[in-house]
Amino acid sequence: MRRRGILFVISGPSGVGKGTIREALLKRMDDLKVSISATTRPPRPGEVDGKDYFFLNQEQFKKMIEEDNFLEWAKVYQNLYGTPRDFVLENLEKGQDVLLEIDIQGAMQVKNKMPEGVFIFIYPPDIATLSKRLCGRGKDSIESIKHRLAACEEELKHAKYYDYVVVNDDLDVAVKKTEAIIIAERCRIKYIDLEVM
Amino acid sequence: MRRRGILFVISGPSGVGKGTIREALLKRMDDLKVSISATTRPPRPGEVDGKDYFFLNQEQFKKMIEEDNFLEWAKVYQNLYGTPRDFVLENLEKGQDVLLEIDIQGAMQVKNKMPEGVFIFIYPPDIATLSKRLCGRGKDSIESIKHRLAACEEELKHAKYYDYVVVNDDLDVAVKKTEAIIIAERCRIKYIDLEVM
Repeated sequence: MRRRGILFVISGPSGVGKGTIREALLKRMDDLKVSISATTRPPRPGEVDGKDYFFLNQEQFKKMIEEDNFLEWAKVYQNLYGTPRDFVLENLEKGQDVLLEIDIQGAMQVKNKMPEGVFIFIYPPDIATLSKRLCGRGKDSIESIKHRLAACEEELKHAKYYDYVVVNDDLDVAVKKTEAIIIAERCRIKYIDLEVM
Repeated sequence: MRRRGILFVISGPSGVGKGTIREALLKRMDDLKVSISATTRPPRPGEVDGKDYFFLNQEQFKKMIEEDNFLEWAKVYQNLYGTPRDFVLENLEKGQDVLLEIDIQGAMQVKNKMPEGVFIFIYPPDIATLSKRLCGRGKDSIESIKHRLAACEEELKHAKYYDYVVVNDDLDVAVKKTEAIIIAERCRIKYIDLEVM
């Protein structure tokens, strides 16, 4: 029997580069299934339902909350975002490893429901670099950046609840380390079925 | 303060390819210190004391046993072999990761003394392949090969005491997986000093 899939959670403060690391990982590893978030915000041009997000209306989203069908969810600027539980669980049951990229508050909720996941904290090299990155991507206001930096310092304290820390001071190295964690976890004795070897 | 070094133990049955994996790892990673064994067998042509082995006489070896200065030792065909404890501990204290390649009986002794080490079991793809490898290297008699294969089946049962299992069905893949385990372990939260970040 094939082993159950492993849930890999990549998380860290806003602007730390976790999305970039996720994209790089998916290019290097074709055996990871990405968890797709649900949201009530309207699709942006080019976004595809069921690929970029599951686009739901408020009523649909709230029904899923009531049915406890989110591993985590949050309200961000009037919009609801969440990780549908069934999508993740069904893939894990099939033996498919799942990659979930998510903010720290979300990761802490997921850890609460699925402590057997592998939690990887992407750490900024320093606050100055993080600030530069948040400014550089140009989609956030100064006020929003200030707010996020303050939140970031608070968020970094959560690193201790994770299994691994990867410092993103060099993207290639950070991707290589995250990939190594995934490869290594798959070799852990608890996932090896010695009976059939 | 730099973190303490990590002890990586590569082990597995005779002929499984653990020596080859060790050599390949050392070529790829320049930040691993190899543990050097002590032995009472005479040096073979070209072997250098303090590099290939620490060559000791019986009296010196027995003194080290009495002083509990071996992480493990064994008698093999009238010769004594052992892993000097101080060499390993001094390197770990300096923050140097140490790589120890060793048979299963030895690894079990090391685990007893240093359970905080990372124990990696190199697993044969199947007994037929292992038999071929043992014959192929031409330095063992048929009788010795037969004996080893029987011992091997018994030895495989020890895999469950290890942290990781790497199946050596493709050398490049096995080396990559072992390297990934080393990279990943260095990212584990217990080795990250969050205070100085």
